[in-house]
Amino acid sequence: MEEPVLLVLDADPSPRLGALTGRARVRRTDGAGLAEALPHADVLLVWDFASDAVRTAWPGDGPRPAWVHTASAGVDRLLCPELVECDTVVTNARGVFEQPVAEYVAGLVLAFAKDLPGTLELQRRRTWRHRESAPVAGSRAVVVGAGPVGREITRLLMALGVQVALVGRSARRTIHGADDLDRLAARADWVICAAPLTPRTRGMFDTRFFGLMQPSARFINVGRGPMAVQADLAAALRKRWIAGAALDVFEQEPLEPHSPLWDAPGLIVSPHMSGDTAGWRDRLGEQFVAMYEHWAAGRPLPNVVDKALGYIPGTDVEQ
Amino acid sequence: MEEPVLLVLDADPSPRLGALTGRARVRRTDGAGLAEALPHADVLLVWDFASDAVRTAWPGDGPRPAWVHTASAGVDRLLCPELVECDTVVTNARGVFEQPVAEYVAGLVLAFAKDLPGTLELQRRRTWRHRESAPVAGSRAVVVGAGPVGREITRLLMALGVQVALVGRSARRTIHGADDLDRLAARADWVICAAPLTPRTRGMFDTRFFGLMQPSARFINVGRGPMAVQADLAAALRKRWIAGAALDVFEQEPLEPHSPLWDAPGLIVSPHMSGDTAGWRDRLGEQFVAMYEHWAAGRPLPNVVDKALGYIPGTDVEQ
Repeated sequence: MEEPVLLVLDADPSPRLGALTGRARVRRTDGAGLAEALPHADVLLVWDFASDAVRTAWPGDGPRPAWVHTASAGVDRLLCPELVECDTVVTNARGVFEQPVAEYVAGLVLAFAKDLPGTLELQRRRTWRHRESAPVAGSRAVVVGAGPVGREITRLLMALGVQVALVGRSARRTIHGADDLDRLAARADWVICAAPLTPRTRGMFDTRFFGLMQPSARFINVGRGPMAVQADLAAALRKRWIAGAALDVFEQEPLEPHSPLWDAPGLIVSPHMSGDTAGWRDRLGEQFVAMYEHWAAGRPLPNVVDKALGYIPGTDVEQ
Repeated sequence: MEEPVLLVLDADPSPRLGALTGRARVRRTDGAGLAEALPHADVLLVWDFASDAVRTAWPGDGPRPAWVHTASAGVDRLLCPELVECDTVVTNARGVFEQPVAEYVAGLVLAFAKDLPGTLELQRRRTWRHRESAPVAGSRAVVVGAGPVGREITRLLMALGVQVALVGRSARRTIHGADDLDRLAARADWVICAAPLTPRTRGMFDTRFFGLMQPSARFINVGRGPMAVQADLAAALRKRWIAGAALDVFEQEPLEPHSPLWDAPGLIVSPHMSGDTAGWRDRLGEQFVAMYEHWAAGRPLPNVVDKALGYIPGTDVEQ
């Protein structure tokens, strides 16, 4: 019996797949070659998770891989109606990014509270200017997105003494439903977006929403760029509706050099790096290899995404 | 009976002392007037804790206050041999600064691990450059100073998953003795100074010490400036012996504009603000008023400093 064909969407070598030698015929393609290669693949590994190529290449004729795995938490760049409706199983990289992203968010919260950006700017000007900072313990956060990333952010902020309200799609146990968001955001010091990008969440953080927030509050997005309307956020910052924001994700990545976001007041711009601690590519590779072994042995795959929802169902409840 | 004379070393009004109206005759002085006013004071409140005036004014003739309280954690600026040897009770502001300083240190650790200074510099240049960051959970810290501040730093870093070794003067229970410091520092990712400034700790972080540290490690000082030899630290940073440092305290404060520290590579300079969250002056005032009530009622004072040691004995064990 011939080994299954593993198609890797990634022009560059991805790590750890050598472990599959003799168990898979590994083929590589970039986005341009994907449509032609798809009918010959049993498994597609979307290693270049920033690519939109799957959504473009999937519709069309011929066989399709039985399994698509993406080396990311979000599957928004992948899904097209044809992929949602077919039998192909889609899995994601749940387990790799939670702790790094949570640490990143905790770092942003502390940096804002202690005005570290102000300190670094004053240092550049060799200026000694004492300021009072804000306590983090006792402050109030709303974490939007009750999946594994949002829950880990919640856990870590609570360890810092922050009062956290976790908001999911619908209310259950310790999780608030989306209906509570406005009320909670209106009294929060921190609003943190860690939700999946779906038709329901696209554009949810807009002028109306920023208008609800306190003038002293900050907005942090580590989910997906299109959940926040960038122009609305920039305007809210310039009008001082809110005190600051941090975006690690953007409508278009990389952020273009002429974007007004680079110097919006109180905004920290980072290059989609919150989940990427040293060794993250190795961990993603190891995770895929382990999942491939499940698949090749006919065992059920972990991390199966509900394609209609756009995330793994049941991950947004306490486990 | 006339009310006791409360002398406040602070030319500006200090908050909350209005609560003592009718219970103390409040007099104010700046450093220049202190020597003349001392013999007429029953209690001295060192509100201007950055002043060296007490050490200068104390030696001399005439009566001395029975009680000196400083609105700071450290008493290093206060103590002179004559104050150490006399009967005057010295108290400090234990309880006010622990949590803010610990949050500040946690913020620095996360900022270094996530390269927030690099992110802000790239943002200034409108440059999108993805980097891998470091995990904080599982990293190793040595906290030097097992008093209330060092213990709160330890608690908060442990909540972030950091493996923390707490170092005091001598070993007991969960605290390492000073003899262990070199060995612990040699494998630490973070060395954090939160010790009192005493003859034993002055200059302890020097070329020899920085040479022990790992090239990837960072040094953070939130104790007192003279514990670290600034020229040695600057040289260690320029030679890349260590990856970075953060100083909130300096040999001379404010740091002079021409100091080479302002642009030492990998160094974050902040203006002695780690403990100062909004409302800190109010909390210091309230704390003093409460202590004054103890004193006026003849009850034992809390926060009594062992003047020979230079800190509150017994605060460096778990309580």
